[in-house]
Amino acid sequence: MSALSPGSTIGILGSGQLGRMLALAAARLGLKCHIYADEPGPALDVACATTIAPYDDEKALANFAASVGVATYEFENIPVGTVAFLAKRIPVRPGAKALACTQDRLSEKRLARELGAMTADFGSVDSLAELDERIIQIGVPAILKTRRFGYDGKGQAKILTAGDAKAAWAAMRDQPSILEKFVPFQREVSVIAVRSAEGAFAAYDVSENDHRDHILHTATVPSRLGAEVANAAVRTTRGLAEALDYVGVLAVEFFALDYNGRTVLYVNETAPRVHNSGHWTIDACPVSQFENHIRAVAGWPIGSTTRHSDAVMTNLIGKDANTWSKLAAEPAACVHLYGKHEARAGRKMGHVTRLTPKPGAGS
Amino acid sequence: MSALSPGSTIGILGSGQLGRMLALAAARLGLKCHIYADEPGPALDVACATTIAPYDDEKALANFAASVGVATYEFENIPVGTVAFLAKRIPVRPGAKALACTQDRLSEKRLARELGAMTADFGSVDSLAELDERIIQIGVPAILKTRRFGYDGKGQAKILTAGDAKAAWAAMRDQPSILEKFVPFQREVSVIAVRSAEGAFAAYDVSENDHRDHILHTATVPSRLGAEVANAAVRTTRGLAEALDYVGVLAVEFFALDYNGRTVLYVNETAPRVHNSGHWTIDACPVSQFENHIRAVAGWPIGSTTRHSDAVMTNLIGKDANTWSKLAAEPAACVHLYGKHEARAGRKMGHVTRLTPKPGAGS
Repeated sequence: MSALSPGSTIGILGSGQLGRMLALAAARLGLKCHIYADEPGPALDVACATTIAPYDDEKALANFAASVGVATYEFENIPVGTVAFLAKRIPVRPGAKALACTQDRLSEKRLARELGAMTADFGSVDSLAELDERIIQIGVPAILKTRRFGYDGKGQAKILTAGDAKAAWAAMRDQPSILEKFVPFQREVSVIAVRSAEGAFAAYDVSENDHRDHILHTATVPSRLGAEVANAAVRTTRGLAEALDYVGVLAVEFFALDYNGRTVLYVNETAPRVHNSGHWTIDACPVSQFENHIRAVAGWPIGSTTRHSDAVMTNLIGKDANTWSKLAAEPAACVHLYGKHEARAGRKMGHVTRLTPKPGAGS
Repeated sequence: MSALSPGSTIGILGSGQLGRMLALAAARLGLKCHIYADEPGPALDVACATTIAPYDDEKALANFAASVGVATYEFENIPVGTVAFLAKRIPVRPGAKALACTQDRLSEKRLARELGAMTADFGSVDSLAELDERIIQIGVPAILKTRRFGYDGKGQAKILTAGDAKAAWAAMRDQPSILEKFVPFQREVSVIAVRSAEGAFAAYDVSENDHRDHILHTATVPSRLGAEVANAAVRTTRGLAEALDYVGVLAVEFFALDYNGRTVLYVNETAPRVHNSGHWTIDACPVSQFENHIRAVAGWPIGSTTRHSDAVMTNLIGKDANTWSKLAAEPAACVHLYGKHEARAGRKMGHVTRLTPKPGAGS
């Protein structure tokens, strides 16, 4: 596929805030978006065309494919079958290989290990008996997670003693699962990177992430990682992107653990999409993660991933967004609201990025 | 009117690139836009609702008014009657007073003079006989301009000698006109400022503007004006905004003339809207001129007008936009394309802003 000209249409699966910010970034480049989703969401307000239909509606998918030059997605939990159906008609980026691997915590961790990266000890769990075995092998504390469809701490159960096994397994509802040994990390960081169809690769500065109630609370750049460790995180991300023939923006979350004065990185999770911990790039970089994802899937050159300011991104969860007028009055705050109607608890309603000059910057 | 809550709809008259960038800025804040225009344009692609109807279609205007919380406009050449009709139903910002004054080069210049600012010598011209008189009073070289509906050099004729008068007047096609003495300026600069409904005022750094074929070519910040002169330009802009009870973003263009080592400013033109010479604020400021206009008309607090980077904005006119893939490959270039189909000569197709760190900034 050659580069999509301005005026062309990109198809996006998913109607959430990530799709919305992708569509806004596409508009900046003169590209149109067609949003396809199984339910309405905030992306529809800024899209040129929209389709609301189930992800297995072949007629709707075929029409969607006929209307776009390339398709991408804003979340990894779309059925692989949907992507396979579309991929017979148009390029889908990132491709089925990247999606299949990153949808499954087990294959994701195996790939990281194959590439020489560290991960928490892990093992697959398909029954209570197998869970008992894994607990014996791996030890406690550990976390049992469904292999698929988990996000923001959903589909997870802590196992502090062997006695927790039964309840944890029940919480998985018989879904194929993975037991991961708890990593006593000092901090969580992530790399947001982009890879073009031609294999060009670039990464934004590593962000340091703070979670509350299993939901990202803040992402801060620069992180407190040393340059060498940060470079290692980017190298691991690049290895994953190349192994997955990845095209688009990829996010890799790491645990950072202090070990005898050395910082050790463990790959935690890989997301085949733009990521909440990269929202600061909208305001602190010439080209945001959203624009770079659009550029990559459209076959355009990758844009700069440099950063002109230090930044702290804070999520606005549920009722946090009710403080919008106070936030709007704060001088250095860049306010982003996603246009969601109902401020339900735990719902990502917006975010605010606070910029400060980089050390040594002029006034 | 109290502040419009996120989720509310702002009406925008005009469907061009300024309306498009206003709608994108509104989306960032969770606000929706309804575009009303007498012909389709690039703003429609990113709007939640659209109406294409003549500006005097009272039924369409009434429906539009009923669907929005406040209305604004992206160009000053809309009929004052349209604004008056809407203003009986909803707030229109900026108001009819600002629109009426800035639509007319004569009243615009008179106001500037009343406020103590310098302008080129000028006089009204309604006939060829009157033009001859004005030429005698004011002298040549001078420029004859229609009082209304001119932009990008349209509706203008140079008068170098008295012999040019007849042809110049013929070019005005009997429209009420104004003769302005030519100002031998060294540079053109502009102030982009914002005023809230409560009277709060803020200005972006003065930009230095370079024109080609009467169309803005580049806008550069910082300008080469000294701080004192730049402050004077901002003071004049504030005076105009206050005299016009202005709400929203206002652009004032100045000629800067070196006079015995002193820089003298002449008010050239006032635009009651976001302005091409402020497009650099999208990439070089936490809050762009577009967002600040939306904030002001929505009754929100004004956002920061500080600048984190130096910037040069270059317009992409006509076929310039065909270089998009080369521009996209340039590391520090922020590319903006407006989604216009046809790259006609003289048509504003997009712009590119090149950022550099402010002197003394860290790497």
